Amino acid sequence: MTYTLVLLRHGESEWNALNLFTGWVDVHLTDKGIAEGKRAGELLAEQGILPDVVYTSLLRRAISTANIALDAADRHWIPVIRDWRLNERHYGALQGKNKAQVRDQYGDEQFMLWRRSYDTPPPPIDSADEYSQDGDARYAGIEVPQTECLLDVVNRMIPYWESTISKELLTGKTVLVAAHGNSLRALVKHLDRISDDDIAGLNIPTGIPLRYELDENLRPVRPAEYLDPEAAAAGAAAVANQGGK
Amino acid sequence: MTYTLVLLRHGESEWNALNLFTGWVDVHLTDKGIAEGKRAGELLAEQGILPDVVYTSLLRRAISTANIALDAADRHWIPVIRDWRLNERHYGALQGKNKAQVRDQYGDEQFMLWRRSYDTPPPPIDSADEYSQDGDARYAGIEVPQTECLLDVVNRMIPYWESTISKELLTGKTVLVAAHGNSLRALVKHLDRISDDDIAGLNIPTGIPLRYELDENLRPVRPAEYLDPEAAAAGAAAVANQGGK
Repeated sequence: MTYTLVLLRHGESEWNALNLFTGWVDVHLTDKGIAEGKRAGELLAEQGILPDVVYTSLLRRAISTANIALDAADRHWIPVIRDWRLNERHYGALQGKNKAQVRDQYGDEQFMLWRRSYDTPPPPIDSADEYSQDGDARYAGIEVPQTECLLDVVNRMIPYWESTISKELLTGKTVLVAAHGNSLRALVKHLDRISDDDIAGLNIPTGIPLRYELDENLRPVRPAEYLDPEAAAAGAAAVANQGGK
Repeated sequence: MTYTLVLLRHGESEWNALNLFTGWVDVHLTDKGIAEGKRAGELLAEQGILPDVVYTSLLRRAISTANIALDAADRHWIPVIRDWRLNERHYGALQGKNKAQVRDQYGDEQFMLWRRSYDTPPPPIDSADEYSQDGDARYAGIEVPQTECLLDVVNRMIPYWESTISKELLTGKTVLVAAHGNSLRALVKHLDRISDDDIAGLNIPTGIPLRYELDENLRPVRPAEYLDPEAAAAGAAAVANQGGK
């Protein structure tokens, strides 16, 4: 018996298209992002991978991607659980800033440190900043971060995986996790036991389901597979090049 | 302290537009239905009625309407619970049939009896019928009806209201129920203590939020109000005239 987990990074958002750091800012999908969500659902249906339950973040781009993909796969009716711990990494004071401009202003080294360092967060966002999430009703009861590094994401995502998602998986359900570049990187790091250094080189493309088959200890029985490997390779390269001109 | 309950009938579906009996057949919204869902969300936002949790049926037209409305109201991130007990009335052997043709074939009296009788269901659907839901994965573990009258809907909807929805309401949350003409008629009958005879004359328009303020015994403190009363009156008249030529 193996357990099927499917990870799905949301389709292109308006701020992906504008090359802005997004983090917890709640932007919409672009038409391309909507099409990616639909294609993701078609891939699931074509390959007979039918989620029994879906987990999403509290951000529109992941929620919409899940809705669109599941509708396309005729699984719109499955239970959905939404939790902030699946949110994208909070990008601190970089939220709303153009990636190329930040790179120009701070230089390649600092830029890549903020994007890919495991434990160095960007500068914190000010509560008064228009892109701060302080006071957002959806985060009532939690301490909204002012910035996060990937380690911070690991420290919220993995306990949620352990306490909740993994338990549902072990009941035999096919679980879809529709989330973000960095919350999914945190989970992939954990599942594939990727080192703190090597995770910097892992890029997850948008809109292509990534399938894990896990054993009873939730270790992969074989390397995870994108349902459209060619598109995934091209997509991962595009993510790696963000901030370029 | 009063408790806010909002009922929302899904927007126009493809089969509404074709004048077909739909029941549990899982059809899509039309473009008009999508626009109705968006307008419903705008009405919620304009009037400051912000749902904390949403209940939907297992049918796409209600699920999509809820998704679209909540996105428009910036409440896409609230918890969602989906349950078959909010489904539309199962229309038995009439599912997939044209309302005007059924009226022509069986006469006005029989037609209105099937549409509006409280306790006379249409003929049962055959398991082999293309529009039967026997074997549909989403209903695993329940006995799929072969037909239902409104009384049957009351008998599944009201226990769910009592055991689940009403309890969430009494915690102080604003609850949105996105469902169907007949599951909502069952709930309205219960809340407003409408007689078995008088419920025949109640028509709920598509896509217009209906707001209840309930006391601690879950009795309305005043008559429920549509958030767009003019559009609601026109919409209810249109529902009443279905099956006309």
